[in-house]
Amino acid sequence: MHPAASVGIVVPQTIVFDQPFTLQNGRTLPRFELITETYGTLNADKSNAVLICHALSGTHHVAGRHHADDKYPGWWDSMVGPGKPVDTNRFFVVGLNNLGGCAGSSGPLSTNPETGRAYGADFPVVTVKDWVRTQAMLADHFGIDTWAAVMGGSLGGMQALQWAIDYPARLRHALVIASAPKLSTQNIAFNDVARQAIITDPDFHQGHYAEHGTIPRRGLRIARMMGHITYLAESGLGEKFGRQLRSDGFQFGYGVEFEVESYLRYQGDKFAERFDANTYLLMTKALDYFDPAADYQHDLEAALRQAQAKFFVASFSTDWRFSPERSHELVRALVAADKDVQYVEVVSDHGHDAFLMEDEPYLKAVAAYMDNIDKELCP
Amino acid sequence: MHPAASVGIVVPQTIVFDQPFTLQNGRTLPRFELITETYGTLNADKSNAVLICHALSGTHHVAGRHHADDKYPGWWDSMVGPGKPVDTNRFFVVGLNNLGGCAGSSGPLSTNPETGRAYGADFPVVTVKDWVRTQAMLADHFGIDTWAAVMGGSLGGMQALQWAIDYPARLRHALVIASAPKLSTQNIAFNDVARQAIITDPDFHQGHYAEHGTIPRRGLRIARMMGHITYLAESGLGEKFGRQLRSDGFQFGYGVEFEVESYLRYQGDKFAERFDANTYLLMTKALDYFDPAADYQHDLEAALRQAQAKFFVASFSTDWRFSPERSHELVRALVAADKDVQYVEVVSDHGHDAFLMEDEPYLKAVAAYMDNIDKELCP
Repeated sequence: MHPAASVGIVVPQTIVFDQPFTLQNGRTLPRFELITETYGTLNADKSNAVLICHALSGTHHVAGRHHADDKYPGWWDSMVGPGKPVDTNRFFVVGLNNLGGCAGSSGPLSTNPETGRAYGADFPVVTVKDWVRTQAMLADHFGIDTWAAVMGGSLGGMQALQWAIDYPARLRHALVIASAPKLSTQNIAFNDVARQAIITDPDFHQGHYAEHGTIPRRGLRIARMMGHITYLAESGLGEKFGRQLRSDGFQFGYGVEFEVESYLRYQGDKFAERFDANTYLLMTKALDYFDPAADYQHDLEAALRQAQAKFFVASFSTDWRFSPERSHELVRALVAADKDVQYVEVVSDHGHDAFLMEDEPYLKAVAAYMDNIDKELCP
Repeated sequence: MHPAASVGIVVPQTIVFDQPFTLQNGRTLPRFELITETYGTLNADKSNAVLICHALSGTHHVAGRHHADDKYPGWWDSMVGPGKPVDTNRFFVVGLNNLGGCAGSSGPLSTNPETGRAYGADFPVVTVKDWVRTQAMLADHFGIDTWAAVMGGSLGGMQALQWAIDYPARLRHALVIASAPKLSTQNIAFNDVARQAIITDPDFHQGHYAEHGTIPRRGLRIARMMGHITYLAESGLGEKFGRQLRSDGFQFGYGVEFEVESYLRYQGDKFAERFDANTYLLMTKALDYFDPAADYQHDLEAALRQAQAKFFVASFSTDWRFSPERSHELVRALVAADKDVQYVEVVSDHGHDAFLMEDEPYLKAVAAYMDNIDKELCP
């Protein structure tokens, strides 16, 4: 692996689907757009395509930079690039911003053609199943009949799983990383607190904050601060910040005292500036609703029996948001359904966020799996 | 044990300390009051007194009821009463609302004698060390030279620990339950998010909400909802609520859908009605600051070497806010400091809240320990 290697400067591309799309909740969008990025080259028989599905706050910008001075690369730049685990010298990689997102795809920030104003809170709630359907339309657009792999971490892994169940013939591999076959009660509870923080912010205006010229920054900030704690390992947080103070001695007030407070508030502030509140609400609902077994009498094994893909499942030792036990559930059901599955449990101090980190054993495990996919392509 | 036995109808008593009291932060209160309840009878040599220290949102109302129609008993009614683990037929039990509280002791809701208005945000930040000093003054008031025991759960356990270090000759036993020798980074992080939710509530008005005729209900509600999740075990929450919906099918909106959402929102609403926001801030700061080892070059063993008391330490298997590992730290340091310590790790599905629950093995362990204290008194 060459950590320095990059796909370079990338240009996003917006794809228009000028046809009505009926969502799982019964509502119909008259048209929609998906913003995408692609890396690498689609081979002649279109067999080397990999779809990257993003998590809660991710985007289409998976790898590379948008311009020479771009401060940060895409969110999975350690995973995707020339010589990297998802090697863009061999694979054609597609990233997209999901429907309902706020990074360029149709979502609450888009204009509602029926009113001429931004959808805001009127944008419908979307589900993982909806996303997978739009992603299948995206595959059609690229002329890709079958993905070599569909992959993602967290909510992204859920999309990979739903793909394997809903479109069994259209992917050969599903990589489900730091994910779960459905949210736990605690997961839902944390999501609801985050939503309540946003919805009860006086600047939320029932989601029509744009019309009021406001942004529910307070709510977004609290939601992100809380979320951020749950994405990190207790041990990692302790080792990074401990009980370090910003200055000598206690201040006996409510300003920043401990370093961890400064860090969290900064994360919250930054997020509140960049992320749309309505999209945040939508994404957390998609998480809550995800439960592919529910369509099969709550029998996960029966749901997975639909799949024809092979599976790679990975979890991280200190991830308590989607703990290794949740991946074990999935692996057990896959084995029971006679599916081909490779499972790796990565020792990490980075909690749930580990799936985004540059961790050698983790990246090597994905690289080895992807190498084998490549060998299928070029026997 | 007779779970039905109760101390009956109890009447709180407010004790006035009409003398200046200088806090750890250097500020001086010209006078202060502590509201208390007592149960049982102080014996002739005043050797059977037990001090109960409360946690974040607790009060002086430990056991019994305030009137015949009182819906709920005191917060530790399962622990304190005739024939109960802390047997009021044998012990004289004192509960108090700590300084800075909002249940009747001097705190943000009290009148500042210097201004004639409520202290509000001007009430000084208090520490566990401050509380223990006020509790020693309370002991003096009752003519109690030495407590048979000082006990508490969570933040209450921290007070018991600080007692043993700061007033070694004034207690014979310290019962430290579901507690920790100091907060972890993650604990502090959760506290800061809770504080930020309150402080950024537009109804907070820098803590002077009373003067504005408002209450920062939104912030308190979010703080409590989040806190509540962390007080419960993931497994317990899952078994109690699972993914149960309030109605058939998904609503695709942001009202209550899952039962756990309804439960949490109710808990948050109830708390926002009853608890003072400034007190909430104070209490979480007292938690953050607690670190008795810091006075001894961060050597917990050295701090505990001051103690003369015997120790009872208990933790709960699914408590992830103050996990058994945190109690192990304490027990290891106590053993290293040559102290007499009994440790029990209770298997429970109730997380941190288990210390408040009626759990037979837990209550029996405390009862057995208290029986031995009683035998010391009556050899």
